[in-house]
Amino acid sequence: MTINSSAWQTLFINVNLATMTDGANSYGAIENGAIAISEGKIAWLGEEVNLPNYDEKSVHVIDGNGKWLTPGLVDCHTHLVYGGNRANEFEMRLQGKSYQEIANAGGGIVSTVSATRKASESQLLASALPRLIALHQQGVTSIEIKSGYGLDTENEIKMLKVAGQLAEKLPVTIKRTFLGAHALPLEYKDKPDEYVDLVCNEMIPIIARRNLADAVDVFCESIGFSLAQTERVFAAAQKHHLPIKVHAEQLSNLGGTALAAKYNALSSDHIEFLDEAGIKAMKYADMTAVLLPGAFYFLRETQLPPMVLLRKYQVPMAIATDANPGSSPIHNIQLMLNMACTFFRLTPAEALAGVTCFGAKALGLAKNKGQLALGFDADIALWNIEQPAELCYQFGVNPLSELFVAGNKVI
Amino acid sequence: MTINSSAWQTLFINVNLATMTDGANSYGAIENGAIAISEGKIAWLGEEVNLPNYDEKSVHVIDGNGKWLTPGLVDCHTHLVYGGNRANEFEMRLQGKSYQEIANAGGGIVSTVSATRKASESQLLASALPRLIALHQQGVTSIEIKSGYGLDTENEIKMLKVAGQLAEKLPVTIKRTFLGAHALPLEYKDKPDEYVDLVCNEMIPIIARRNLADAVDVFCESIGFSLAQTERVFAAAQKHHLPIKVHAEQLSNLGGTALAAKYNALSSDHIEFLDEAGIKAMKYADMTAVLLPGAFYFLRETQLPPMVLLRKYQVPMAIATDANPGSSPIHNIQLMLNMACTFFRLTPAEALAGVTCFGAKALGLAKNKGQLALGFDADIALWNIEQPAELCYQFGVNPLSELFVAGNKVI
Ligand SMILES: [Zn+2]
Ligand SMILES: [Zn+2]
Repeated sequence: MTINSSAWQTLFINVNLATMTDGANSYGAIENGAIAISEGKIAWLGEEVNLPNYDEKSVHVIDGNGKWLTPGLVDCHTHLVYGGNRANEFEMRLQGKSYQEIANAGGGIVSTVSATRKASESQLLASALPRLIALHQQGVTSIEIKSGYGLDTENEIKMLKVAGQLAEKLPVTIKRTFLGAHALPLEYKDKPDEYVDLVCNEMIPIIARRNLADAVDVFCESIGFSLAQTERVFAAAQKHHLPIKVHAEQLSNLGGTALAAKYNALSSDHIEFLDEAGIKAMKYADMTAVLLPGAFYFLRETQLPPMVLLRKYQVPMAIATDANPGSSPIHNIQLMLNMACTFFRLTPAEALAGVTCFGAKALGLAKNKGQLALGFDADIALWNIEQPAELCYQFGVNPLSELFVAGNKVI
Repeated sequence: MTINSSAWQTLFINVNLATMTDGANSYGAIENGAIAISEGKIAWLGEEVNLPNYDEKSVHVIDGNGKWLTPGLVDCHTHLVYGGNRANEFEMRLQGKSYQEIANAGGGIVSTVSATRKASESQLLASALPRLIALHQQGVTSIEIKSGYGLDTENEIKMLKVAGQLAEKLPVTIKRTFLGAHALPLEYKDKPDEYVDLVCNEMIPIIARRNLADAVDVFCESIGFSLAQTERVFAAAQKHHLPIKVHAEQLSNLGGTALAAKYNALSSDHIEFLDEAGIKAMKYADMTAVLLPGAFYFLRETQLPPMVLLRKYQVPMAIATDANPGSSPIHNIQLMLNMACTFFRLTPAEALAGVTCFGAKALGLAKNKGQLALGFDADIALWNIEQPAELCYQFGVNPLSELFVAGNKVI
């Protein structure tokens, strides 16, 4: 690649770079570095002593004062668009109310489905926007948003449209995932296969035709959809050329991950109960493991993800908020970094890779996002820290100093 | 009390009030309420239908649009002033480095003492200020800050002075606690009683004379100070008319809480291992139990505080961040609300009482702060929520809308 410094628009000097180009190894760190941007892409990076000549008049030079730069963060698993909240249910449970009392008061995912169906597009947009703003202010520049609280064609489409509209409100890359197979709607009680028919034969074709989703996801679990039902949804997605993701092995080892591997899924998410065969299948299919410490925390789970095996087979590990009203009402990616280290014992380098290069990989964005590398999108976060581990170690004071998206300063 | 509405300066109408005047019971809620401020104090509150006549020209009327109001939050246990951070140690531990390697690299409280001693007053102020700003932006209007990383007369005084200076930077009430008996400094290795002599005979008298602290605290623990050493510090504090607090029963049941009760301590903090006799002693002495879910989380403790007994004896429970670089580098009081519910199974009403009325009580401020009540300081937080439990249930989107201190809008 020839260096064409005359095309540079922006140049950061006097910075340290956590390039994340080497997976979870040592942040791919370049200390005393510099990085140049041209047409929204990274056009040069390296040690500042090796900086080629450039025209100081045509380049906007920013002195980073020793700050650390990372790729803009990626939150690769969220359910950010939903109606209502579940504070009432949360409180009743802590007051010792019985499951029957909570159900009678309208608790559970049913209440979120009901509130989401009732909400208009603009209401859903208005309630999701502050959540996205909060994540953006923490450094998030790419995010996945799932449907899955509509559970009928009209309302699933409504959720996906709102997810798309959010991209017009903030400079954040949004990947929309269709999760019609999230739960069984009340009107299909005892008729799960008929609901799967609807997902496969009506929802997926319409959504694919109207280009409303970037991937298809299934909640494969005893309390979700069976392996056979999951495979039907995967087949329909494949038929319509939509990539696959899966919620699997969160509560039991059903085999959803291995099945997803057969369909070349992007990722398997949760995976606390995944076994070695499933991990081998993931590795063989080049899938990403998405770990969700917020749900682990909020549900007070005790089964840890299979860290030893994930490391042994070098499966890329992403970290995400799983932001959702039922099991992880936690809209904070920086907290996930701390929790991934504290609960799952990830190293800070592994955790940071989980919200950069491997978060991008889980969304099919590995070639453009999540690394500071030549030709990658210039989504760059500047942090007031002295070493990258501080991003994981401390929590509460937001260390984000500035945020650039496609080379433009947005914060 | 006669109502003198002509003296009102500010009046909130169309609000819901979590007055917290009834301890942990149902938030002391007044829906469809109003609250008036005169000379920085709460001059009237109640249901809006009962609002007396007032002169609309002389009162600044604020329509709260149905928002919930709570007392400004109280973070009653922090170590907010310190030098350096312990990210390096955090990372080494997660990388599987041995204790010896970490110690050789300068880990542990020794490293914080060393960095704190090296830092100038202005450096300590500059590093503590963003932490206090973060807490203030979460709704904190009163906070306790402990010394305890100086461990010699000069540096303990320096820390307490910085804690006092923070009150000039932000409209937050700051209570300074002298914690000289936090750890044994290296230069007194194997001579703990001589260090306690220094604390009792030199530090406490000087600090009392120069009015540098509002209370005295001791870390009473096998790895801290013995019961006999703790009592010597309590006696010195009592002699100089300084109220007492104690870090006790965090790792074992040494009896520090019961001892503190004999000295009419304000609070005993941590208390995971406290027994029934200790709880009875607390109740008898009207002490507050300060629960610290951030340290519980960060240290991955498993021993829960004795919730059943604390409730049985109706010991007031406060919640605080314990913000400190070693065991709780978590500068977020809203997260503590969520963690108190999630880990300790507090109800949202108990958790909110922990950062309002009982947080104030733990600081000796029970008569002025932590409640929306007649004559109390008009430290008031306005929240974008539909019910108080949301403050505990969700995390990440800061629901603080506005903040008033002594009747003045500060956020
Ligand atoms: Zn999920
Ligand atoms: Zn403490």
